[in-house]
Amino acid sequence: MEKLIITKIGGNVIDRHDMLDQFLIDFAQIRQNKILVHGGGVIASEIAQKLGIEPQIIEGRRLTDEQMLQVVVMVYGGLVNKTIVSKLQALGINSLGLSGADANIIEARKREVKEIDYGFAGDIESVNTGRLIQFLSNGITPVIAPLTHDRQGHMLNTNADTIAAEIATALSPSFHTTLIYCFDKAGLLMTDTESDTIIEKVSWDKYHQLKSEGIVSQGMIPKMDTAFAALRGGVKKINICHASSLLAVVKGNPKVGTELSL
Amino acid sequence: MEKLIITKIGGNVIDRHDMLDQFLIDFAQIRQNKILVHGGGVIASEIAQKLGIEPQIIEGRRLTDEQMLQVVVMVYGGLVNKTIVSKLQALGINSLGLSGADANIIEARKREVKEIDYGFAGDIESVNTGRLIQFLSNGITPVIAPLTHDRQGHMLNTNADTIAAEIATALSPSFHTTLIYCFDKAGLLMTDTESDTIIEKVSWDKYHQLKSEGIVSQGMIPKMDTAFAALRGGVKKINICHASSLLAVVKGNPKVGTELSL
Repeated sequence: MEKLIITKIGGNVIDRHDMLDQFLIDFAQIRQNKILVHGGGVIASEIAQKLGIEPQIIEGRRLTDEQMLQVVVMVYGGLVNKTIVSKLQALGINSLGLSGADANIIEARKREVKEIDYGFAGDIESVNTGRLIQFLSNGITPVIAPLTHDRQGHMLNTNADTIAAEIATALSPSFHTTLIYCFDKAGLLMTDTESDTIIEKVSWDKYHQLKSEGIVSQGMIPKMDTAFAALRGGVKKINICHASSLLAVVKGNPKVGTELSL
Repeated sequence: MEKLIITKIGGNVIDRHDMLDQFLIDFAQIRQNKILVHGGGVIASEIAQKLGIEPQIIEGRRLTDEQMLQVVVMVYGGLVNKTIVSKLQALGINSLGLSGADANIIEARKREVKEIDYGFAGDIESVNTGRLIQFLSNGITPVIAPLTHDRQGHMLNTNADTIAAEIATALSPSFHTTLIYCFDKAGLLMTDTESDTIIEKVSWDKYHQLKSEGIVSQGMIPKMDTAFAALRGGVKKINICHASSLLAVVKGNPKVGTELSL
């Protein structure tokens, strides 16, 4: 079975041009099949504010009203996605920017309103694995923005961690998949100590223990839950690491980032 | 030889949701191989102004400084492109939004500074016909934004009329190509009469005559020059028409729009 590396880049790496450039240089060196999923960075909030739209974020998830949807479609699907695609092209990687609507890669359903109305937020219904496999076999590297569509003509804002996990899971019957979450921290950190200590390996049981003890920071919980779901769904290897550690993880260095296990 | 219809949609059709929706319903009904190239509309200028950037346009061409480049990449590559792609998906057309950087579809060179510095404006160097043919043969309808790249990591702003013409020309050895410029006027108009009269057929000689007499409006000249270049380059049929006349032109109705001949 061929290998496939799905990398998600997020945190403020998107906004820091020097870090993003170095990350893309590293990503371009991955020789296996690869897919890049990117987050939005804080630039969407900055542009929204300049346009007079007040961003609202609850529990790390953005509330997406119609105006904010326009901004995220512009910024994620346009500015961030095309910036990354053009830089990867310069590095010799034949990248193709995709939202979920493009070639119907990711269909989603507008999130139902329960306690919170997230607005135009999409919960993924299906990943078009056949089309992604076709792109990969044609030498194309998909670069996926955190946007989906409902197939009724509406774009939807969708969490990039979730997109990366769902794609990795959906492609696990066809590839030996590795999912690497790259961001601006070294991995899962013990936040109760004076200097943050990285947790090198975390099982589902240990994660629950750390969570119940309040040792895992609040913002990491949705990311970890999503990652464990992907591991249960057939993804072979999952690591959460600093953007600068991507190649070390790809090469199998066990001392880098946080490795998940069931 | 298979037929290929390359349609460019521009003018204020992009900004008028009712007109755009009807145009896309018509476009979706084209049974032949098809490619859609879209312009930017005035929304890029509106968003730029809200962001405090003053748009500058000389002879119908936008001056693209670094800030304006960010806006056009956002608006053309993100908002406009994904809006069209998601609407076409809802109409059952498996559309794929592309800038020139995506899958390296269109390489360009930053325009040299002569009398005017157009900034990050791209003059097309090559069209990746192999990749476009591959997408078409895989049942994908490319939806192309007026953006190219220089393969050095920079996006460039490129006129949508020119992109449509260059793609049509480049694909003419492989397909029987028709190029249809759709906009918010009925075709090439005689602007010297009280009520504008549409010119049904225009040859290269007649165009020159009309131009020298000042009968063709100034804004139409670059569009006509570009279209005639495509006709000389092997495109079989070129029509300039109102967006609402797309299907009539596709069906060969001779009384619609302005048909070009050498």
